[in-house]
Amino acid sequence: MARINDHYLKLKAGYLFPEIGRRVRAFEQANPSAKVIRLGIGDVTEPMPSAVADAMHLAIEDMSKRDTFRGYGPEQGYDFLRDKIAEHDFLARGAEVSPDEIFVSDGSKCDCGNILDVLATGANVIAVTDPVYPVYVDTNVMAGNTGAANERGEFDGIVYLPATAANGFSPEIPTRSVDVIYLCSPNNPTGAVLSREVLARWVSYARRERALILFDAAYESFITDPSIPHSIYEIPGARDVAIEFRSFSKTAGFTGTRCAFTVVPKSLMGSTVGGEEVSLHALWTRRHTTKFNGVGYVVQRGAAAVYGETGHAQVRALVDFYLENARIVRERMADAGLEVHGGVNAPYVWIATPAGPDGRRAASWAFFDRLLTEANVVVTPGSGFGGAGEGYVRISAFSSRANVEEATSRIARMLR
Amino acid sequence: MARINDHYLKLKAGYLFPEIGRRVRAFEQANPSAKVIRLGIGDVTEPMPSAVADAMHLAIEDMSKRDTFRGYGPEQGYDFLRDKIAEHDFLARGAEVSPDEIFVSDGSKCDCGNILDVLATGANVIAVTDPVYPVYVDTNVMAGNTGAANERGEFDGIVYLPATAANGFSPEIPTRSVDVIYLCSPNNPTGAVLSREVLARWVSYARRERALILFDAAYESFITDPSIPHSIYEIPGARDVAIEFRSFSKTAGFTGTRCAFTVVPKSLMGSTVGGEEVSLHALWTRRHTTKFNGVGYVVQRGAAAVYGETGHAQVRALVDFYLENARIVRERMADAGLEVHGGVNAPYVWIATPAGPDGRRAASWAFFDRLLTEANVVVTPGSGFGGAGEGYVRISAFSSRANVEEATSRIARMLR
Repeated sequence: MARINDHYLKLKAGYLFPEIGRRVRAFEQANPSAKVIRLGIGDVTEPMPSAVADAMHLAIEDMSKRDTFRGYGPEQGYDFLRDKIAEHDFLARGAEVSPDEIFVSDGSKCDCGNILDVLATGANVIAVTDPVYPVYVDTNVMAGNTGAANERGEFDGIVYLPATAANGFSPEIPTRSVDVIYLCSPNNPTGAVLSREVLARWVSYARRERALILFDAAYESFITDPSIPHSIYEIPGARDVAIEFRSFSKTAGFTGTRCAFTVVPKSLMGSTVGGEEVSLHALWTRRHTTKFNGVGYVVQRGAAAVYGETGHAQVRALVDFYLENARIVRERMADAGLEVHGGVNAPYVWIATPAGPDGRRAASWAFFDRLLTEANVVVTPGSGFGGAGEGYVRISAFSSRANVEEATSRIARMLR
Repeated sequence: MARINDHYLKLKAGYLFPEIGRRVRAFEQANPSAKVIRLGIGDVTEPMPSAVADAMHLAIEDMSKRDTFRGYGPEQGYDFLRDKIAEHDFLARGAEVSPDEIFVSDGSKCDCGNILDVLATGANVIAVTDPVYPVYVDTNVMAGNTGAANERGEFDGIVYLPATAANGFSPEIPTRSVDVIYLCSPNNPTGAVLSREVLARWVSYARRERALILFDAAYESFITDPSIPHSIYEIPGARDVAIEFRSFSKTAGFTGTRCAFTVVPKSLMGSTVGGEEVSLHALWTRRHTTKFNGVGYVVQRGAAAVYGETGHAQVRALVDFYLENARIVRERMADAGLEVHGGVNAPYVWIATPAGPDGRRAASWAFFDRLLTEANVVVTPGSGFGGAGEGYVRISAFSSRANVEEATSRIARMLR
């Protein structure tokens, strides 16, 4: 009989969002008249920018004529897209990234998980911040890089770096040596950002320890503070230590259209068991061309339109719209007496649960359930992102203005 | 320093098609006036069916309005597509497959490789037919399921099942016990098909040995013989032993649009190291929801249009067009004195290389080079698909009629 990957059995009850979905469905079935507002999952709600739609319509016309039809494209993405990404997202910010270091894909979630394919199993010390996007941890469990979980859901073999109110949600650089570090800025779920100085310290640590930074910049377009780096490659020396994940999902509303990209610099090396250095760019190229077949032409044309004048302005307006939602959440929740973090350079507001009658802060899932049943608002329990997220919930700014206003009013009333 | 996956270093010089691309580019640079015709890579050339284009245009309209905008969809695919697949591709043929056993994805190549994520590393005996689609072997090498390659490019730890003219390109069922078997019918590259009786023998073997069959049916729509099964689930008992890969790439011209699906029946089990049975459907669900984020809405609407009346007729016409190409290749190559296989229920014609002046059959790459330099026609060398493919080339029917006629005329002249 075919043997399964036993590591999957170490995973906890289920990915966070399906569990939220389950509780919400159960509530809605029991309370069919409740008007539930979802500020849980970070999913965009506003229509596709017309520049993207126009480009996709035109691309379908190309596909409909024999002379301009496109079959298999380059697995790494079309030059028309990779060139624009290199120019606008990197060179324009002084970051040195060439088009052939950019791998267009169907999603950052996929790439974050798949990158482990080119790394050794069980041979690297993996560090994650805590709270953390669950996919980083779950994919390491699935790949066999961890032991079992303890009662707090922490996996043996993973180094957790707490991001707390005490350290301003900027985790300390580890005192021990680690091989792979996941960093996410602007952060999901805390909404915190890593300053240039802090990021430079991480790069310096990684260069000294020869560690690999997996830098998730999926929310970079929400940065409002001009001093904050959008790319880790804005930090000198990062090309030798970092892979960066980017996505059109949150910036251009592509969660249901699917386009992202990953940067693997050619100067980035890993080591064989014998200590020989091997190009991670070469390995990822082999992975990407063997186990992936590129993003569809129509979708890549849509993504490229984001870099045109009209597209850029429309995407900027989308991001500003969600940032205004974040401001409303932040201010109203603070007015309601809650301790509020994030939401300035990020679409997520990270909120400490209020104290109960016993004076102790409510648990994340308890506050989640209270918000669901009393205010009919869905948020994300912070503990779903890790032990250090206990006592927090994440409120997403991805919704309509009316929903954000109604939801925050209901929460304020509930807390009165 | 981050340790790499050393198994990648066992891979041979490169995936077959990039090597072909390299030789063709070198020839074209040296001979800029040569009009090279590509019948190598199996990539569609005819425009997108208008029913698909219309559905995609409409879906972009949906995405452009707030009320009908779609963000993240279900990772496994929208019901509107999974329901149609279950009904038309399976129930209509008497195969019992429910919509929630269907996982929509961005490509069969991806799924074929990714399925190894849910299987144990190094614990299963893997069998492949020879010649074989290189991705099956390469992904097993990358996953650490093999040892090193010998001088013929065969990897230690893989059981190769030769498909030769002597056995009608239908490999013998192994006499030893194997855990995982890749079968592809209609076959890439030989163009052979597995009859109902032969497929039933494979299912019976797998049930007896409790082996897992990975059944690649990407070319099923090219079956012309009504007695040949399109799905392995047409064979009673297959639901307990088989995963099936399907794609819109070759049937509906989606190589540049990207949509496919994989069927994992709920009755299919694998075993833990301790012998406990675990549902592969549950494991693949976890993999698919954690490391993948679904296919874009616009693309899924396009795929669903394939099942409408107009779409079905247009796709049928596309397939018939390529099958007519295959007939032309087959007949003209036979007329030119070559030994010809396949091309009746498949878009690939498998041709034995002619004997040279010494009376011995030419090597695949030698005949490839001769066809490139003398006839300016690109084919695929059979040896690129495995040792048993040596002495053959694959000619793809995916091209315009004019190209097929011109290429076959040139080859016939060359052989005169």
